[in-house]
Amino acid sequence: MELTVYLAGEIHSNWRDEIKEKAKALQLPLTFVGPMENHDRSDNIGEDILGEQPNAIFKDDAASDFNNFRTQVLMNKADIVIALFGEKYRQWNTAMDASAAITLHKPLILIRPSSFHHPLKELSNKANVTVETVNEALKTLSYVFES
Amino acid sequence: MELTVYLAGEIHSNWRDEIKEKAKALQLPLTFVGPMENHDRSDNIGEDILGEQPNAIFKDDAASDFNNFRTQVLMNKADIVIALFGEKYRQWNTAMDASAAITLHKPLILIRPSSFHHPLKELSNKANVTVETVNEALKTLSYVFES
Amino acid sequence: MELTVYLAGEIHSNWRDEIKEKAKALQLPLTFVGPMENHDRSDNIGEDILGEQPNAIFKDDAASDFNNFRTQVLMNKADIVIALFGEKYRQWNTAMDASAAITLHKPLILIRPSSFHHPLKELSNKANVTVETVNEALKTLSYVFES
Amino acid sequence: MELTVYLAGEIHSNWRDEIKEKAKALQLPLTFVGPMENHDRSDNIGEDILGEQPNAIFKDDAASDFNNFRTQVLMNKADIVIALFGEKYRQWNTAMDASAAITLHKPLILIRPSSFHHPLKELSNKANVTVETVNEALKTLSYVFES
Amino acid sequence: MELTVYLAGEIHSNWRDEIKEKAKALQLPLTFVGPMENHDRSDNIGEDILGEQPNAIFKDDAASDFNNFRTQVLMNKADIVIALFGEKYRQWNTAMDASAAITLHKPLILIRPSSFHHPLKELSNKANVTVETVNEALKTLSYVFES
Amino acid sequence: MELTVYLAGEIHSNWRDEIKEKAKALQLPLTFVGPMENHDRSDNIGEDILGEQPNAIFKDDAASDFNNFRTQVLMNKADIVIALFGEKYRQWNTAMDASAAITLHKPLILIRPSSFHHPLKELSNKANVTVETVNEALKTLSYVFES
Amino acid sequence: MELTVYLAGEIHSNWRDEIKEKAKALQLPLTFVGPMENHDRSDNIGEDILGEQPNAIFKDDAASDFNNFRTQVLMNKADIVIALFGEKYRQWNTAMDASAAITLHKPLILIRPSSFHHPLKELSNKANVTVETVNEALKTLSYVFES
Amino acid sequence: MELTVYLAGEIHSNWRDEIKEKAKALQLPLTFVGPMENHDRSDNIGEDILGEQPNAIFKDDAASDFNNFRTQVLMNKADIVIALFGEKYRQWNTAMDASAAITLHKPLILIRPSSFHHPLKELSNKANVTVETVNEALKTLSYVFES
Repeated sequence: MELTVYLAGEIHSNWRDEIKEKAKALQLPLTFVGPMENHDRSDNIGEDILGEQPNAIFKDDAASDFNNFRTQVLMNKADIVIALFGEKYRQWNTAMDASAAITLHKPLILIRPSSFHHPLKELSNKANVTVETVNEALKTLSYVFES
Repeated sequence: MELTVYLAGEIHSNWRDEIKEKAKALQLPLTFVGPMENHDRSDNIGEDILGEQPNAIFKDDAASDFNNFRTQVLMNKADIVIALFGEKYRQWNTAMDASAAITLHKPLILIRPSSFHHPLKELSNKANVTVETVNEALKTLSYVFES
Repeated sequence: MELTVYLAGEIHSNWRDEIKEKAKALQLPLTFVGPMENHDRSDNIGEDILGEQPNAIFKDDAASDFNNFRTQVLMNKADIVIALFGEKYRQWNTAMDASAAITLHKPLILIRPSSFHHPLKELSNKANVTVETVNEALKTLSYVFES
Repeated sequence: MELTVYLAGEIHSNWRDEIKEKAKALQLPLTFVGPMENHDRSDNIGEDILGEQPNAIFKDDAASDFNNFRTQVLMNKADIVIALFGEKYRQWNTAMDASAAITLHKPLILIRPSSFHHPLKELSNKANVTVETVNEALKTLSYVFES
Repeated sequence: MELTVYLAGEIHSNWRDEIKEKAKALQLPLTFVGPMENHDRSDNIGEDILGEQPNAIFKDDAASDFNNFRTQVLMNKADIVIALFGEKYRQWNTAMDASAAITLHKPLILIRPSSFHHPLKELSNKANVTVETVNEALKTLSYVFES
Repeated sequence: MELTVYLAGEIHSNWRDEIKEKAKALQLPLTFVGPMENHDRSDNIGEDILGEQPNAIFKDDAASDFNNFRTQVLMNKADIVIALFGEKYRQWNTAMDASAAITLHKPLILIRPSSFHHPLKELSNKANVTVETVNEALKTLSYVFES
Repeated sequence: MELTVYLAGEIHSNWRDEIKEKAKALQLPLTFVGPMENHDRSDNIGEDILGEQPNAIFKDDAASDFNNFRTQVLMNKADIVIALFGEKYRQWNTAMDASAAITLHKPLILIRPSSFHHPLKELSNKANVTVETVNEALKTLSYVFES
Repeated sequence: MELTVYLAGEIHSNWRDEIKEKAKALQLPLTFVGPMENHDRSDNIGEDILGEQPNAIFKDDAASDFNNFRTQVLMNKADIVIALFGEKYRQWNTAMDASAAITLHKPLILIRPSSFHHPLKELSNKANVTVETVNEALKTLSYVFES
């Protein structure tokens, strides 16, 4: 049984590479998908495809068309969603993706530093599992295949 | 036709009172519901009902049980959701509520200061309407009843 | 049993008034809702609420935010949808509303001049009922309450 | 990850061939499906299978049975829908297919000449992405697989 | 708590009157709806509204447009469906309505003479309750309100 | 805003009366519904309506037809479900009702003695709220209406 | 693109073999599934697995448990449903399967002799396509793959 | 056609091995999945991943996070669910899984000793099939593939 995992969350560290390598080392039958990780490409994709926009707000709106399209296509295919909150930035799209996964009845693993326990308490409460490290998320994935 | 509006978002200013009063002045047939607005009560509700918890994380988890219960009951009844992002705090539960509304096919009005256009771009793109002020949200509600 | 009817379609003739008056004359327990019928208000609602937009395309996109919000709120409440195609204009939003109604399992009456039988054949085939006049649509509504 | 794309829209130009060839050149893992592109076959399929019908309206209704059957089978399998509006014809079945895709939570790319921005404003607003050329649609598909 | 009951099934005996009168006598808070019970009106409704059709098959198809419209409107409002099979006729639309109710998660009471136990065995097995008389169906309805 | 609460669970103590009285004293706008509380009536309802069955297993199967019918009708109307596990009996239908509520996205309060924390751990984990007393459940209901 | 077709309907003629052979000859990428075609096995399956039942009604109820289980498993996997009504028998389970398919949004081809146009008019009206022969159904399947 | 079967229920006997071996012997195209069968691992998985918890209740809650995650992932993939009730323990999570399967429209086989016919009567009534032995469940699975 091959499962697809959508990796939502911040794109400023290499946590996705870490999780992919470890899953490979454990020979877990998982395919990983996720958002555009090149931050500039993600911010500019609207103008890259549609051309220059009137101002920064319209540039952002154009980019989010393509980013939301990508996310919806890939999340529709996902059996599991992992959402990681890092120390920096607002990360409201991470919360958006995590909440969409829950509402669509897709199992969700939330990764967050323990320092975020208060602002993330309602989302953590709705997630199936809340952990603090990528390693713990990997153990959670691995548990599905243990016998 | 009476409609129910869930007012998601920050509980540190009186924006809900403002919207309720103006809707009343305009005689719009709207019932407003929303989260617990007493911040201490919201944070303590877990211990208020279940007694002392082992530490701050468990206290938060207990509180979020009751807060999520309230939100789910009331949002299930809502015809429209308004989500307001203020200048302060992480507001990840606001993003969570907004995304749940969208996924459940409930029409969503997003209110945010224009300074947040970048971090909220994906959520704004999914909302039906994004505005900057409570007044604009009220005009949006009012437009539904215009003939 | 009171039913709500969403009246989708062109806003350049007074067909909605005709249907409302006749339903009233027949004392049918129906509430009618529908889109903004003031054409200028409908086209300008984006700028009326959000202020001037960069160009005509962005003005249209802003207006459609509010028009789609209104439609989604009211169609969610509707038990029946009537979609009328007139002789003029592209009327793609009428087709959009009719198709959304069908997909949401809401019973649909299509009104169209017989001259449109060819371009509307697939949509007509999916509608519950296709008629040519407002009068026939009214007879269809009336039939629900006959005993 | 192999994805299936339904190509809705006009069947009077070779835009589907263009998109298929370019996707192949880019080695995108996509399977394309769509409506019957032979216009006469599409118009006559009802009589081809069921025999002569009483008049042109019944001939059209018979044809649309089979065309809607084909569309429903293939769109149910699609992960992505692209809807192209050309310069000519009413194209109400294109609007119907696009709206069904949106309502079924299938990601939608709308292709239309900029001259249509006004009559398509509500549908464009609901689509994930609106572009003007087949090339831009291809870039959108390609973006899903970029890393 | 007021409940709505859709009474599907044959229209050649007065079983609906019987059930309505007995429910009234028991002061059960029930509203009953159902198909057109005037058999000629039901068969002719297509031509009554649309005018003469080419032949008997097209006349039937036109009538079924309006009958299915009525059924869908009223069954969407129903909390409970009762389907009665009589001794005569094919009654395939009764089976169709009963199966639609089950699939839509609407509680179903099936009334059939015991002589039909074999041909109705799969449908009976899916119904919540199978009884033989209108009186037993009424006791089933009454049981919902007992305390 | 009037809400309906389904009270699932054991029928050997008067916990439903307690919750109804206290809700009344607090003037909460709640309507309570639930299963047949007369144990003999609940066990015999199949034979009461259908007559004697071949043996105890068939008697039970007949009774469960009517009990499941009642539960489905009333739970479909419920905005909130409360499931109480008492000290005695297997109570598998309580677990069944609680799990159905969760899967149908209906907010659930679980009441159980703390001694049951181990065997109920998976169900408790899925419930919105787990409490130990009727009083705590009442405080949870009350919290929804606090402002 | 491989599609799965559920063949509902009578099991007294060899129409399924005919459709399978012709599909094979045309090299259509179709997998066919359907009910138990051995009539005795279908009637006896309840007692074959569970042992003797108290009487013919209970024997039928036991058999329908297993027949409905098989149908639900296989219809859940089906992309297309074909329902054939023959000249004989009540065939209420055929109507039940056809209606379930429609309600689950699965494309449906109805095959019936033209003599049945009146009793099947409502079901035929809801089917995507109604034809009179297995050959016409095959042409309908084939049309999906034509280019 | 390959089908996936989720084996819910007690983990204190080797019934899963028995069913897997017999299915293999019969060459049924089935993949079996299920919960963690190592009882200690299942009870400790929360602390194994998250570290020591404050007390036994919190330890259980942590474990159930991971057990429910595993169950949701695998049940989402299942075409069929088998739930076995053994002689011992409360087995409320078995009832929870069985009820979730029914509500999600997944075909369910219930295996229980006949001595449990009374406490399981409502759940048994909702299951597609109730049998007493693993062997009978296997015959049920085998019946799906018989021709």
